[in-house]
Amino acid sequence: MDYAKEALIKHKEWGGKIEVTPLCPLQTKDDLSVAYTPGVAQPCLEINKDVTKAYDYTRKGNLVAVVTDGTAVLGLGDIGPEAGMPVMEGKAVLFKNFGGVDAFPICLATKDVDKIVETVKMIAPTFGGINLEDISGPRCFEIERRLKAELDIPVFHDDQHGTAVVSLAAIINAIKIVKKNMSDLSVVINGAGAAGVAICKLLLKCGVKEVIMCNSKGAIYEGKDGLNDEIVELAKITNPNKLKGNLADVAKNTDVLIGVSVAGAFTPEIIKSMNRDPIILAMANPIPEVFPEDAIAAGAAVMGTGRSDFKNQINNVLAFPGIFRGALDVRASDINDEMKIAAAEAIASLVSDEELTPDYIIPTPFDTRVGQEVAKAVSKAAIATGVNRI
Amino acid sequence: MDYAKEALIKHKEWGGKIEVTPLCPLQTKDDLSVAYTPGVAQPCLEINKDVTKAYDYTRKGNLVAVVTDGTAVLGLGDIGPEAGMPVMEGKAVLFKNFGGVDAFPICLATKDVDKIVETVKMIAPTFGGINLEDISGPRCFEIERRLKAELDIPVFHDDQHGTAVVSLAAIINAIKIVKKNMSDLSVVINGAGAAGVAICKLLLKCGVKEVIMCNSKGAIYEGKDGLNDEIVELAKITNPNKLKGNLADVAKNTDVLIGVSVAGAFTPEIIKSMNRDPIILAMANPIPEVFPEDAIAAGAAVMGTGRSDFKNQINNVLAFPGIFRGALDVRASDINDEMKIAAAEAIASLVSDEELTPDYIIPTPFDTRVGQEVAKAVSKAAIATGVNRI
Repeated sequence: MDYAKEALIKHKEWGGKIEVTPLCPLQTKDDLSVAYTPGVAQPCLEINKDVTKAYDYTRKGNLVAVVTDGTAVLGLGDIGPEAGMPVMEGKAVLFKNFGGVDAFPICLATKDVDKIVETVKMIAPTFGGINLEDISGPRCFEIERRLKAELDIPVFHDDQHGTAVVSLAAIINAIKIVKKNMSDLSVVINGAGAAGVAICKLLLKCGVKEVIMCNSKGAIYEGKDGLNDEIVELAKITNPNKLKGNLADVAKNTDVLIGVSVAGAFTPEIIKSMNRDPIILAMANPIPEVFPEDAIAAGAAVMGTGRSDFKNQINNVLAFPGIFRGALDVRASDINDEMKIAAAEAIASLVSDEELTPDYIIPTPFDTRVGQEVAKAVSKAAIATGVNRI
Repeated sequence: MDYAKEALIKHKEWGGKIEVTPLCPLQTKDDLSVAYTPGVAQPCLEINKDVTKAYDYTRKGNLVAVVTDGTAVLGLGDIGPEAGMPVMEGKAVLFKNFGGVDAFPICLATKDVDKIVETVKMIAPTFGGINLEDISGPRCFEIERRLKAELDIPVFHDDQHGTAVVSLAAIINAIKIVKKNMSDLSVVINGAGAAGVAICKLLLKCGVKEVIMCNSKGAIYEGKDGLNDEIVELAKITNPNKLKGNLADVAKNTDVLIGVSVAGAFTPEIIKSMNRDPIILAMANPIPEVFPEDAIAAGAAVMGTGRSDFKNQINNVLAFPGIFRGALDVRASDINDEMKIAAAEAIASLVSDEELTPDYIIPTPFDTRVGQEVAKAVSKAAIATGVNRI
């Protein structure tokens, strides 16, 4: 199927991918008097007395805003808020389909960090959570950090954490195959954008001791020039031996190579230079850092990409619907690292030891158990870390 | 039925009155590849090339934001954004049910005029129209005026114009009964808030030569102290004889008395002092300025209220769903006076000369013809005034 052509035809036919539909009947005068005036005054008054009652009497507790400024949409870059909308609507559809979450796209007419933060704060009373989407780095880090600090509902930048959670799930299962321990791994991440940074932080949180990040100018080390604030901080806690050089230099004798970068970045030579049974996650889209057959020919033991037409698709849809479902179910005030790790473990656990092979380390997006199991694990972690509010 | 009690039970049972549902299938890998990556990139690119294509490939052209700051919710006053949500969700349900419009509530965490204007501008790319709701005066006038000037999509403050349109429809038919002409009417409007101001402007636009507005301190005349900017301007073009005094003083020898004020404001004496066959619209909620039986006993020829349990309910739901439907259908850049008047005439026309009686001057909210007929008339008026974009 020619997806591009088909997508144009279908998008026009659909006239948008979401609609806002009533959950209450409106057939009689009594219906109108209960759902609207005069009856509606009563839930209004109850919420006015106790604002947490908004979770009981309105959709707030199941509503997530999918917020973008259209600056980093797919691999298309800064295409503007209106042009980002088809992706945001798609995201909303995935939220509903895989998590039962009502998600609504909000495409912003600004790229200014202060204005984005302010706008999201202003519209927050409507929502039970905020999913930031396709906002370019390094602005995305500041926007998320400020919103997390200032709002009492979860704020989650999916390009960072969704990718990190699913990558972690893949690694959890991949190391079972190659019989290595998380704490012994040496990991190289090529790409220091939103996803790379989040993957790095989550792996460190999970006990990986050696992570080396690379950007287009090679290995990142403490004191390197031209780094943004986010990376300056990461440089302090990564690359413990302060290795310099390009990707090929630092990938030698490592266990895991993660690409959130550009097509073709991983040569066979790089893979051959790694430790025994290397794990490769090559997530550049649509053309990965290395194609699976080439990686395996070069000795990769386990291989994942971002694509649905290869084995082991590292797909955010495994994470975000269940993560928000789980957070909303306990009215969480935050989505913290423990909740993300719980989500990764839940995803990984859906591949049983018997099923686990190099070609099947993570479930497919259509595995209907995923959303529910992730939600349960996330709710539990929220309660364990005290960010739940019911 | 005890609507208050029933509303609490039902709102909790519903868990909110709206949901966001997919319009596209998501059962197979191909579905996912068309609605989301990689296919979705194609409509994104088309919109990036030509932003008007957002109307073809996304929901924008059918989406209206119902925006409030929760400062003037029903008769409850300033109850805050979260507490306003049940009304906004109710509004969204009415939009869908009576106009086929997808409306989404946005409850703002600010009462600051600049911040409200800025926030709505920031989120505007998502929407094909903005419905302002339950924002207190006189801030509502400035907010609407600025947004109308700065946005290229229709902005409509329903508390003003919805009420004005339905009031005008009622008057169009009421004067047929009493055999008077619009241009000869002398009209008194008690209440100089959002609705009063908009009714006044629309009647003047329709050729009424004498309108006298009253606030709680009596008749408004040019030069009166303590008026806000909006009313200062209106004072110049109303009350041509610069009458002073209270409501009872100025209502003498007038033809139409409109209340958007407080319970009990219209005494039998006031009605008795009016010209022959007075028309009374007493829209204070839930207790009108005068009850229908008392108004009729005092000589009212035609009587309407805001309540569903009396005859002739002046209900905004007759107007806003069809008005936005009609505006969206032609991608209107504005909802102008001509479109509002066309809406009022369409509503009035649905009561045929044969059906027209003092007890039936406007259709009921459940007359399924209303939304469609209003939409048709509004689209036509948009085209006639050149604000259409298809």
